[in-house]
Amino acid sequence: MAAASEADLMSKIVSLCKRRGFVFQSSEIYGGLRSSYDYGPMGAELKRNLMAEWWRAMVHSREDIVGLDASIMMHSDVWRSSGHLAGFSDPLVDCKVCGERFRADKAPRLAEGEPAPITLADKGRAKAAQERIKDLSEAPLTRSKATLTGALAGACGYVCPNCGSPFLSDERQFNLMFRTSLGPVDRIGDIINVVRENLGEGATDGDIRRKVEETLADSAVYLRPETAQAMFVNFLNVQQSMSMKVPFGIAQMGKSFRNEVTVEHFIFRSCEFEQMECEYFVPPGEGPKYLEIWKDTRRAWWEGIGLKPENIRLRVHEPDELAHYSDGCWDVEYRFPWGWDELEGLASRTDYDLKAHSEGSGKKLLYFDPEATDPETGKKGWRYLPHVIEPAAGATRGVLAVLCDAYDEEPADAEGKGARTVLRLHPRLAPIKAAILPLVKKDGMPELGRAIVQRFLDAGINAKYDEQHSIGKRYARHDEVGTPYCLTVDTQTLSDDTVTIRYRDDRRQERIHVGEAVDVILAALRG
Amino acid sequence: MAAASEADLMSKIVSLCKRRGFVFQSSEIYGGLRSSYDYGPMGAELKRNLMAEWWRAMVHSREDIVGLDASIMMHSDVWRSSGHLAGFSDPLVDCKVCGERFRADKAPRLAEGEPAPITLADKGRAKAAQERIKDLSEAPLTRSKATLTGALAGACGYVCPNCGSPFLSDERQFNLMFRTSLGPVDRIGDIINVVRENLGEGATDGDIRRKVEETLADSAVYLRPETAQAMFVNFLNVQQSMSMKVPFGIAQMGKSFRNEVTVEHFIFRSCEFEQMECEYFVPPGEGPKYLEIWKDTRRAWWEGIGLKPENIRLRVHEPDELAHYSDGCWDVEYRFPWGWDELEGLASRTDYDLKAHSEGSGKKLLYFDPEATDPETGKKGWRYLPHVIEPAAGATRGVLAVLCDAYDEEPADAEGKGARTVLRLHPRLAPIKAAILPLVKKDGMPELGRAIVQRFLDAGINAKYDEQHSIGKRYARHDEVGTPYCLTVDTQTLSDDTVTIRYRDDRRQERIHVGEAVDVILAALRG
Repeated sequence: MAAASEADLMSKIVSLCKRRGFVFQSSEIYGGLRSSYDYGPMGAELKRNLMAEWWRAMVHSREDIVGLDASIMMHSDVWRSSGHLAGFSDPLVDCKVCGERFRADKAPRLAEGEPAPITLADKGRAKAAQERIKDLSEAPLTRSKATLTGALAGACGYVCPNCGSPFLSDERQFNLMFRTSLGPVDRIGDIINVVRENLGEGATDGDIRRKVEETLADSAVYLRPETAQAMFVNFLNVQQSMSMKVPFGIAQMGKSFRNEVTVEHFIFRSCEFEQMECEYFVPPGEGPKYLEIWKDTRRAWWEGIGLKPENIRLRVHEPDELAHYSDGCWDVEYRFPWGWDELEGLASRTDYDLKAHSEGSGKKLLYFDPEATDPETGKKGWRYLPHVIEPAAGATRGVLAVLCDAYDEEPADAEGKGARTVLRLHPRLAPIKAAILPLVKKDGMPELGRAIVQRFLDAGINAKYDEQHSIGKRYARHDEVGTPYCLTVDTQTLSDDTVTIRYRDDRRQERIHVGEAVDVILAALRG
Repeated sequence: MAAASEADLMSKIVSLCKRRGFVFQSSEIYGGLRSSYDYGPMGAELKRNLMAEWWRAMVHSREDIVGLDASIMMHSDVWRSSGHLAGFSDPLVDCKVCGERFRADKAPRLAEGEPAPITLADKGRAKAAQERIKDLSEAPLTRSKATLTGALAGACGYVCPNCGSPFLSDERQFNLMFRTSLGPVDRIGDIINVVRENLGEGATDGDIRRKVEETLADSAVYLRPETAQAMFVNFLNVQQSMSMKVPFGIAQMGKSFRNEVTVEHFIFRSCEFEQMECEYFVPPGEGPKYLEIWKDTRRAWWEGIGLKPENIRLRVHEPDELAHYSDGCWDVEYRFPWGWDELEGLASRTDYDLKAHSEGSGKKLLYFDPEATDPETGKKGWRYLPHVIEPAAGATRGVLAVLCDAYDEEPADAEGKGARTVLRLHPRLAPIKAAILPLVKKDGMPELGRAIVQRFLDAGINAKYDEQHSIGKRYARHDEVGTPYCLTVDTQTLSDDTVTIRYRDDRRQERIHVGEAVDVILAALRG
């Protein structure tokens, strides 16, 4: 697709998603909720299919990986040990001129002392800002229309992304975990009491805040910002109940929550999202070897569900991107309409996580291999803390990648006919595998059509009967939701049990027996 | 099973769940999190299978129901309109003697003026309580060992469920929704400011609390306490994008959260749980008719997944149990070890929900039927607010019902052999459908066994290769996780492609061809 049309590809996809029941804005009738999305009938099927593919590949098809489905709320000590309570935060800054609240690490950079022109929405606002800045700046600023000049960038090295102002609050760390309280507690009453008691004693704001935080800590629970920690915390329960032998993995899919300051690109970065994560436990020292294997495995999986190879790449993390404990990390990236961006992270995490939870909980999370030789004693029988490779994929952004990859428009022919939008989804991912269309709503065709649907359902294939509107409109609708096969029931079907099968991708049509159709589709789903 | 063994059936199930990887206590290495559970490898499969069955029956197999997968966080106005913000609460009371916090509506009843003896854990505590009560009661109490007498029940009509004391705080309404804040806000700083400003002006506690609540309201979001509201809020989006015609339904599965004061019976009532809900929209006046149909449909579904008919019953709600807007409600109940309890609610909700969201959002949520006759005008074409039937099932408690129903113990024979525990799960629900067991780990049997697993996986059946421990131990393990079929590969398999199939329920064994085995299991899954 050309660059110009790539630019509005996203808006076309968003529009298709709403029109065809893939994705709606959450709470839309109430004006919508920031960065929250609901998956409509087609989107719910697409997401389910994508996640089922992952589960099939990661859990059902492998002897060395088992599943887990842990609770979203976990003990706050889990997040203390993992480092999320102390470190999972963004540096937030408020602009004193326009009121924008933004991430310091994503703000436009300007070296200290460089001129920092400030541009407001209009003259009136600029004038008001000019007044306000008199209190903030020694030198008065000059105004030309909506722009103020004369200010210089400060020592922090950045300016407001909205108006360009260097008049900013200090940075404060904003933790991205959503906090709530578990149990029948009265947190507001407690906070009022703490503030009242401490105000009387003349404590500083910082003191009071610390006491409030201490009071809240008793009942605080956090919505998980990743599914991964549950695998570490359940390491022994899973290993023992399933008699797993290293190397083995624990896989989990499900929702995670991050109170992101910046949400962007439709469902790509939202506060509520779904992940597909695996923690793969290996003997110490073998992390790099398994990281190589996982790179190939996961790239192949994304290609296997239909993403075009030229739209996928592996990118190594530079040393300065790596967490201090990691000895290697790669991203599987997809070429989204706005550029290459992360679809999955593949991290070699050494023994950082199990060690942190061993220390935090006081429970030994060791694995004993009776066959291996302990490198320290040289004797048979080795007890060790496994190392971890983590293939952590985004399910929600996987759905977006699949939609972007599958979206296609075909122009009209010379006579101005046949233009269409089509979602070229892999049959395994398609919400509906086969649409059964009676040519007309009479003469026994509906009954026959429904009987054919039942044959598909009996074979475990999601087929849908559809009799609304003309046959052409029905084809167009199923092209747009990615239904790979349409079977049309007509008068001939009544006598010889044949139907017209229409292939979504090339609109080719041919006449086949109904029984064959089930096999064609089964083969496509297995292939 | 006899009454005595029924009493400890729950503890046996809890123990099996941990031992065999069905359910673990969440955050167990950190001492556990109140009422939170993680589903291990077998539990995750069982829950997935149960929910997939519901989706297949409710969405895939029906033309009149489509799916939805909405976000857990919704706009707070959704809960304002639905009535949850004002009314979804329990009356909480604190005991001034022992400190117990409890639900007034579940406390032991005592008429005003009746003697209310108070019993503490020991003499020492009773003595201390006696002192404390001097400030609360005009008449001093007399003590005999750990019991205090002389107090009388108050006007509220109940006493502390822990110690029996009538010295209680006032009731306060405790909202069961979990609240958190969305967006980069500093709620603690805001609350400190509000309290500080208002303390200075001499406001009452009630005033301050109200101002704090107002401040929090801006950014407050709630974790959904039910999945149902998303179907009402998305009514038009779904109806229009899918061209649905009344009667039709929207179905959703997923997590909901309630900050329950009382959690009980393992996974039956927990703060984080999963639901399977459908909102079925019908023309005004037709609610009662469809309620009858849904009663049959849903009872049949629970029986279809294997629950014994004698353990299921339908119970009508008495008029005083009904919500004011409801014109009929039934529960599907299961006979749990502690007695009959709710598995699913079937409610006729009239137009209450769509009307509430129409009024709350200012958006018309009307449906237009061009074929129907408007009863007011007598003309063709009727625009109306549909009525709703809601079959709302618990997925988490469905898992518990399935486990209770399937759990069985067989005694040893006269020679003291053959005792076993077996989970008689419906094959569709069984985590593993077929276990492929090589008799020994050599002579090509592992390779052959793995090739057989692949044949099952190709047919979409979750089979597992298992070579650990003796064949007897492996049978026992698979009985306990409910694997309906074990296929044993031995020397004969190498030459004639036959295996021994062992049936879980009666331990019968016979020799069949591998190809047949796939068909046996496919038939069991479809039947």
